[in-house]
Amino acid sequence: MDYKSVFEKAIDRLHEEGRYRVFIDILRNKGAFPNARCFAGHNGPKPITVWCSNDYLAMGQHPDVLAAMEEALHNVGAGSGGTRNIGGNTHYHVELEAELADLHGKETALLFTSGYISNEATLATLGKILPGCVIFSDELNHASMIAGIRNSGCEKQVWRHNDLAHLEELLEAADPDAPKLIAFESVYSMDGDVAPIAAICDLADKYNALTYCDEVHAVGMYGSRGGGITDRDEVADRVTIIEGTLAKAIGVMGGYIAADQVIVDVIRSYAPGFIFTTSLSPVLVAGALASVRHLKASSVEREGQQAAAAMLKAKFREAGLPVMDSVTHIVPLMVGDPVKAKKISDILLAEYGVYVQPINFPTVPRGTERLRFTPGPSHTEEMMTELTAALVEIWQRLEMQQAAAA
Amino acid sequence: MDYKSVFEKAIDRLHEEGRYRVFIDILRNKGAFPNARCFAGHNGPKPITVWCSNDYLAMGQHPDVLAAMEEALHNVGAGSGGTRNIGGNTHYHVELEAELADLHGKETALLFTSGYISNEATLATLGKILPGCVIFSDELNHASMIAGIRNSGCEKQVWRHNDLAHLEELLEAADPDAPKLIAFESVYSMDGDVAPIAAICDLADKYNALTYCDEVHAVGMYGSRGGGITDRDEVADRVTIIEGTLAKAIGVMGGYIAADQVIVDVIRSYAPGFIFTTSLSPVLVAGALASVRHLKASSVEREGQQAAAAMLKAKFREAGLPVMDSVTHIVPLMVGDPVKAKKISDILLAEYGVYVQPINFPTVPRGTERLRFTPGPSHTEEMMTELTAALVEIWQRLEMQQAAAA
Ligand SMILES: Cc1ncc(COP(=O)(O)O)c(C=O)c1O
Ligand SMILES: Cc1ncc(COP(=O)(O)O)c(C=O)c1O
Repeated sequence: MDYKSVFEKAIDRLHEEGRYRVFIDILRNKGAFPNARCFAGHNGPKPITVWCSNDYLAMGQHPDVLAAMEEALHNVGAGSGGTRNIGGNTHYHVELEAELADLHGKETALLFTSGYISNEATLATLGKILPGCVIFSDELNHASMIAGIRNSGCEKQVWRHNDLAHLEELLEAADPDAPKLIAFESVYSMDGDVAPIAAICDLADKYNALTYCDEVHAVGMYGSRGGGITDRDEVADRVTIIEGTLAKAIGVMGGYIAADQVIVDVIRSYAPGFIFTTSLSPVLVAGALASVRHLKASSVEREGQQAAAAMLKAKFREAGLPVMDSVTHIVPLMVGDPVKAKKISDILLAEYGVYVQPINFPTVPRGTERLRFTPGPSHTEEMMTELTAALVEIWQRLEMQQAAAA
Repeated sequence: MDYKSVFEKAIDRLHEEGRYRVFIDILRNKGAFPNARCFAGHNGPKPITVWCSNDYLAMGQHPDVLAAMEEALHNVGAGSGGTRNIGGNTHYHVELEAELADLHGKETALLFTSGYISNEATLATLGKILPGCVIFSDELNHASMIAGIRNSGCEKQVWRHNDLAHLEELLEAADPDAPKLIAFESVYSMDGDVAPIAAICDLADKYNALTYCDEVHAVGMYGSRGGGITDRDEVADRVTIIEGTLAKAIGVMGGYIAADQVIVDVIRSYAPGFIFTTSLSPVLVAGALASVRHLKASSVEREGQQAAAAMLKAKFREAGLPVMDSVTHIVPLMVGDPVKAKKISDILLAEYGVYVQPINFPTVPRGTERLRFTPGPSHTEEMMTELTAALVEIWQRLEMQQAAAA
């Protein structure tokens, strides 16, 4: 057994497919986001503009968030020092869970160290608590949901993306007495489309299924209080479990679920990914608490972000760039080739000081490689005009298809 | 299908077994650890002494750590804003990985959001990359390792705790050509015993197996630079993969592995639990970096902690309390009953202002429920004398077995 050669071959495969990943080494400039610096090996510590952050509303540099984190740091220290059960439950955790439950109109909420582990742990544990459960999973669900469903050991039925007829067909074919769970996202973050949540809940009612909605890319972003698409569409009370992250629009780090008391109690009591890990640092929890509270009361950031996204989409479209159909804040440009996507990204960074990461397999299906822009309230019209011009130049340089300018 | 009653029954089972968990709601007093406050429902916001923190060296309140976190907070903001590949790779991450690689004498290191996910993701991915791999797992391995091994889909062979003869028996019986991985911890944190790492590596050499060592409870604590038991025993170069946490002796939050470049590259490129999640907040990374650097150069904290643990063990033994055999910094008192363990813990908190969590199933096997004390450099002799007297009083009150005082 030659271990090294097996490992080397696994890496070689990535190089051959043009999808070996090199991490860009950056430091954001707090207070001046989307401006940042880039370290050696790329273009040196030169100024860059970040176009692919998921800190959609720049809450990661909001003064209230920073003040709350600094206060917690000096009040209780760096880490929690324990699991939630053994020494790691602080009053910050209790308060944030209450705040998140309120945000989603649920009885209670539960914090995890990440959105990834909240999906994995909750879905895996639900499936184990409900023997014989069938999980109906949208085909574009996130890797963390897929991991949870696989680890649940349940039968999985994959429905075509956002296809209600297909979902119903599968529900109808399943054993009427089997427990059922329909798992989906509200905003699909690589395409920018939205799930028909009310209609999914209608089917759940008809076939007596539980529903699980990942609102990771919508929390803070939609609804009058930032409760996500379920808030905007007023369907939060119809979804059994809402899952979210504190690491994107909230601007910090961590994940959570919100649901009925008894369901949260089951996950809290049985999920290894919740039980056997040090709880979130109180510093992060304090920051997230300030951020959630701010976004409940303020819509300025949401509106600024939506305006920026609309403007960038319009500029791309006018310039004939292949902007994908997105009804949300996500602005994806289709490239369709991993090597080209990387090349464009490299040129943007080296020549234009623009940082946008190429999105390749396994994050998106092969052949749909793309660039994904996330303009925020701090990206100016000037930045967008420059970006569009740069892309047009590169598109021509690489002899890529461009629509007739509108 | 009545979902609610299934969930309620799952919770009822916990109540019946006396192991339903209520989280104690505390706030540490930074700078005055182990002093803390406790919130309503327990004994009100009264002062307490924390005896069960895994912030073993009180690095969570070290001035260098706090200063580094504050600096990062003001320099780059609250969160990283992205996955490591998409916008979430900061220079802090790159620096900490280099520092951890150096700490363990390995080519490189990789950060995860927690020690839990570093174990889960690495073991699951290794197993998938090595088809037909057999994983040999110590029976007391942590839940996160068990999860990773299960999710790898590999054949698992469980060897009796620290039993080299049994491990060799299983290695010998396995297909000589199959890839093999031996997974174990260095310090077992609920008993306080240590793995015979050199002897395990001898067996690994003999049977051509890879080795995976969880140093979560030893990093920062053992060895002249705090590299763990592999550092103290000078065997780090013989272990294929060393895994650790930033959330215990380091005092912050996060996890990592350290290994050869090609292995880390495989995990970095293939592990969903690494790829599809927002990277650690740069604030945490900066704090961990300061902490690791401090503990590499300073042994004062390690020595103070070892002295405190030795003193507490001696006091317990002198008082005839059933302190378990532990060769490390962990001081466990055997109770052997979940209801009694909780009762003792409740009395300590309500009447003595002492916080120590009862440890019950599934964290330890049923029938071995215990109290687990983690004295640190800041616990004074007076605190220990008071604690011992309190325990003796409660032991007598509950009519529990006590050895003749030594
Ligand atoms: C849809 C979706 N769910 C969950 C996650 C994981 O959340 P987190 O970054 O908090 O781990 C992500 C991205 O990271 C995501 O895109
Ligand atoms: C042996 C062991 N490994 C791993 C972990 C997980 O580490 P973390 O708390 O960083 O998730 C723990 C405890 O939490 C542990 O005791």
